Amino acid sequence: VSALRDLGEFEAIRRLAAARGADGGDVVLGPGDDAALLRPHPGEVLAVTVDAFVEGRHWRPEWIGPRETGARLAAANLSDLAAMAARPRWALLSFGLRPEHAIEALLEFQGGAAGALASHGAAIVGGNLTSVDGAEWASLTLIGGVEAARAWTRRGARPGDLLAVTGAPGRAGAATRLALALGRTREGDVPPELLDAWRRPAPRVAFARVLAELGVVTAAIDLSDGLAADLGHLCEASGVGAVLELAAWPVDRGLERAAAALGATLAAVRFGASDDYELAIAVNPAGRAACERAARETATPLAFVGRFTDRPGVLVGRSSDGAERPIDAAGWDHFGP
Amino acid sequence: VSALRDLGEFEAIRRLAAARGADGGDVVLGPGDDAALLRPHPGEVLAVTVDAFVEGRHWRPEWIGPRETGARLAAANLSDLAAMAARPRWALLSFGLRPEHAIEALLEFQGGAAGALASHGAAIVGGNLTSVDGAEWASLTLIGGVEAARAWTRRGARPGDLLAVTGAPGRAGAATRLALALGRTREGDVPPELLDAWRRPAPRVAFARVLAELGVVTAAIDLSDGLAADLGHLCEASGVGAVLELAAWPVDRGLERAAAALGATLAAVRFGASDDYELAIAVNPAGRAACERAARETATPLAFVGRFTDRPGVLVGRSSDGAERPIDAAGWDHFGP
Repeated sequence: VSALRDLGEFEAIRRLAAARGADGGDVVLGPGDDAALLRPHPGEVLAVTVDAFVEGRHWRPEWIGPRETGARLAAANLSDLAAMAARPRWALLSFGLRPEHAIEALLEFQGGAAGALASHGAAIVGGNLTSVDGAEWASLTLIGGVEAARAWTRRGARPGDLLAVTGAPGRAGAATRLALALGRTREGDVPPELLDAWRRPAPRVAFARVLAELGVVTAAIDLSDGLAADLGHLCEASGVGAVLELAAWPVDRGLERAAAALGATLAAVRFGASDDYELAIAVNPAGRAACERAARETATPLAFVGRFTDRPGVLVGRSSDGAERPIDAAGWDHFGP
Repeated sequence: VSALRDLGEFEAIRRLAAARGADGGDVVLGPGDDAALLRPHPGEVLAVTVDAFVEGRHWRPEWIGPRETGARLAAANLSDLAAMAARPRWALLSFGLRPEHAIEALLEFQGGAAGALASHGAAIVGGNLTSVDGAEWASLTLIGGVEAARAWTRRGARPGDLLAVTGAPGRAGAATRLALALGRTREGDVPPELLDAWRRPAPRVAFARVLAELGVVTAAIDLSDGLAADLGHLCEASGVGAVLELAAWPVDRGLERAAAALGATLAAVRFGASDDYELAIAVNPAGRAACERAARETATPLAFVGRFTDRPGVLVGRSSDGAERPIDAAGWDHFGP
């Protein structure tokens, strides 16, 4: 193993660039100059997002290795572009690392990010490396493209539209809370499907691209803070409310076990703070079948779990007996109490 | 003053976005969604760069306020795009901040960055906010555009081309070394023109744009590590060497005083580690007059200080008596010994 302090910044950058291999055809000039030069695709607007992970907050070295952490940071950004129905294209990776950081671990991190990006059509085209004394961090900027008329936003959901979600929101948050409560992450302690949801999120890029062509989605959001919190953001932007059918969810034994172990209700872990990198979408009721077909085509787990209402900002859960209760599960807030 | 921990992440983001005001015409969708949507300009390729500042390394709260630090981070990125002859357009700002960080100071930082970007035609269109325990940091991604045929790169300098530099390289590094040595930054201790060069760099965007239309520049690089180090990168990319005429520089009393106070030679501070955010360019000899005209038009200090040679990687300084000595002043290396 070689520490960055022994290699120096420029040799580290050279090895990072070499490990990334050849650039794609739409990269006019890759790493190694003052900026990358990229050829945008005719007819597309750019979709641009940035997300950062901080050691000890977004990852703990004892829970997850550098390769999976890199892939997870890429997934966080890929999911943002999926929520706009955009094609991911180019990424820049900015690191703050301690001088004793091993180049091998850094190459693993970059490899994890590059692999996740490549499986959705994007490549790393540049970055920055600086040294820190305390917690390490990585910030990834992802640039994609989408036909302006097909882009999804958080605005546009109308009363009567259906609410669908991909995957199993709540699992990632339940996994981390349970691992924290147990003080460890050995399988057997935390249900493996929950650990997987946290460690290996599956950004829904392909599903979003197929679905965007059908024109049935009226609004979309990435689930990165928790279902209730993110759905609240979508409702606020669209000026609507939502009713969640509590009985409409597929059975999730792992989430039930986690809720029991945490002394919480199933709804609290499903709707509460969680970084799942799944999508919540508002669907024109006439488009439900098309939506389910797109999910099958792209092997995407999808559940229709509610409906939008004309009560702005009001989120309620409805039991199978028709009783309604407000949902106020709080999401992640990096600075909150 | 309000700490981020009292406001919460989402209110802080709301205030940051509100302070930025209206978006430009080429911003289809600004902050507040999962990604920004931006309209690229027909005929341009994108030029994309990222640079990060870490508290205690790139800034010290006792030396420089948040507004100037934000402007300086913007300048670091603007200078990268100037080195590609690109027009800056859109920026994303990613922060790692302690929970006790005051929103007022954060708005100052953003205001400084936004002001510097706006004076070169760019706007902040998104970002990210996460909390840290230790040193704070900010990472800025800047996206611009340039006609592919007009973009400058580090490759292309030919033996016989002239070497010109903007501003007074070495001043920023001398200012920080002198301030460190003196343990303070009171004016009178550090020559004010050196402090200014460090605190308020002037990215050469307008000069580069005017000059790019003339087609006389064969290669360019941003001076962010030190003249000798950065010139070395340009020479390596172009497969050439360079001779620096030591007598060709304008007299710089401040730099002379700093060198004397540091017990170093003038050449060592001029060519050594320094983050000036100036440009070094290779110029076709027939284009010298055009180049000087572009400098006058844009009020850019420019000096022709040398010539490229056919000795790859060899940097030498030539005195007025014709004697040549190798130049090996090392640049900044974030991880070096």
